[in-house]
Amino acid sequence: MSAALLELGRQVLATQGFSRLLGTELSAWDERGVRLELAIDDRLSQQNGYVHGGVLAYLADNALTYAGGGALGAAVLTAEIKINYLRPARGTRLIAQGTVLHAGRTQAVCRCEIYARHEGEDRLCAAAQGTIVRAPAPVVSNTRKTDNQD
Amino acid sequence: MSAALLELGRQVLATQGFSRLLGTELSAWDERGVRLELAIDDRLSQQNGYVHGGVLAYLADNALTYAGGGALGAAVLTAEIKINYLRPARGTRLIAQGTVLHAGRTQAVCRCEIYARHEGEDRLCAAAQGTIVRAPAPVVSNTRKTDNQD
Amino acid sequence: MSAALLELGRQVLATQGFSRLLGTELSAWDERGVRLELAIDDRLSQQNGYVHGGVLAYLADNALTYAGGGALGAAVLTAEIKINYLRPARGTRLIAQGTVLHAGRTQAVCRCEIYARHEGEDRLCAAAQGTIVRAPAPVVSNTRKTDNQD
Amino acid sequence: MSAALLELGRQVLATQGFSRLLGTELSAWDERGVRLELAIDDRLSQQNGYVHGGVLAYLADNALTYAGGGALGAAVLTAEIKINYLRPARGTRLIAQGTVLHAGRTQAVCRCEIYARHEGEDRLCAAAQGTIVRAPAPVVSNTRKTDNQD
Repeated sequence: MSAALLELGRQVLATQGFSRLLGTELSAWDERGVRLELAIDDRLSQQNGYVHGGVLAYLADNALTYAGGGALGAAVLTAEIKINYLRPARGTRLIAQGTVLHAGRTQAVCRCEIYARHEGEDRLCAAAQGTIVRAPAPVVSNTRKTDNQD
Repeated sequence: MSAALLELGRQVLATQGFSRLLGTELSAWDERGVRLELAIDDRLSQQNGYVHGGVLAYLADNALTYAGGGALGAAVLTAEIKINYLRPARGTRLIAQGTVLHAGRTQAVCRCEIYARHEGEDRLCAAAQGTIVRAPAPVVSNTRKTDNQD
Repeated sequence: MSAALLELGRQVLATQGFSRLLGTELSAWDERGVRLELAIDDRLSQQNGYVHGGVLAYLADNALTYAGGGALGAAVLTAEIKINYLRPARGTRLIAQGTVLHAGRTQAVCRCEIYARHEGEDRLCAAAQGTIVRAPAPVVSNTRKTDNQD
Repeated sequence: MSAALLELGRQVLATQGFSRLLGTELSAWDERGVRLELAIDDRLSQQNGYVHGGVLAYLADNALTYAGGGALGAAVLTAEIKINYLRPARGTRLIAQGTVLHAGRTQAVCRCEIYARHEGEDRLCAAAQGTIVRAPAPVVSNTRKTDNQD
């Protein structure tokens, strides 16, 4: 069952243009949590050569969303995230670990830690917390895009 | 003076590999706030065709950082951001407006609103709040990268 | 209509044991926002004589909840809040101003600024942002308390 | 050494008028974390009889601050906190557990979970994350109160 969920997750990730652009990989996903990985390259940098904070925020957003989606078992939306940057991120690889703190009927609150692999060591670079909500059932079924958070 | 600041800001943006990858533009910057813009294309999408939340988080991170940097007048680090997603973002262009709420000697607290231009209308899609801190003076001057937040 | 809403708001506030304990007053409330006030006294202090950050967080929580409730027009729950402390708060009075940033069918995202009145001046001491959600309809109608966020 | 730290922590707590008002107890404190406890009574309620969210936010603020203070080994200020409310809190006792995620020279990022003891069970009611910063050295030594965050 976890293998099927992981396969589904990879299919969803492949439909995210932004995740394809960055090259994000889904390496684990079950109802308790998720692990996303991303190879660091120069395209991801800020002005001092470190990974841009926006990349870490993207990764946290995605990890929290997967974690919440795994717990809620449904199409979900990310309502909000908060991220603390702990250290400049550099090295060869980012690893984001998302876990479910609490899941109810309509929302899940999740946490995420992001590590940067540098000289063989994984160092904690950022920590996030956020809310994932069940996407409302579409009101009009033949519309592909609905402004469903309104 | 604002023109010089804007020019400096564009030079910094041009050294951010990630901002070059996405095509972010700095359209205004002074000591009270900043405006960043980003053309929406398929590379920025999530699985339903909207702009990925991670793109909005990146834009918020960058706008908050510029806003704080303009107020603190110095090299800065982003300590933390919080973003609420209000509506799915779609259309042709994202506009992020960052403003300074309070700036002290060592930190600035800033806010940001992100709008998506769709069918001629700018709709509020996300709202953020975060803390920007003055980067500590480097301890060793001949080292290019220092883990200066530790 | 605003007068009726204000009267309702004061009745609700009077049923909050914690707001009675602190002496919180509701001075304005309509569908766009709210103002709560609280006289500063020694009972609210932290170890340096300033107002305890927890008092500011309580006031932000309450202001965000009223703001969201005014916009959603229904019984609401506070899902999450984020608060930045900008200055130590001291003086005679705290004034919290809550406003609605965006309200949809099921949630409202609101902001709040807290001022401390000191020597005739209102100084911004804290800024908050949070999510208010519509309370789910109770499943069992004759039960006073239901764990309705689960 | 932990016993001395715990004793110091209790002395600080006793000088917080607000913590005395509520009756908060410090039951554990070392450089890795802290535990604060608070008996639930009607004075802490919101309009539905549960514990007011502001009480949970106060407790999170205090637990994060103690956790950060233990790690930084110095006088500290709380820069910001974010709290997610997971379940309505009711029962006989609140227990807040604060831990240090990362501590650098000038700031610590901490997390906190708050449990409500109800019918013999401790249920997770809220989760927080925040930033604690080292208080700057006072510029003028003979002034008791300085606006030291400015």
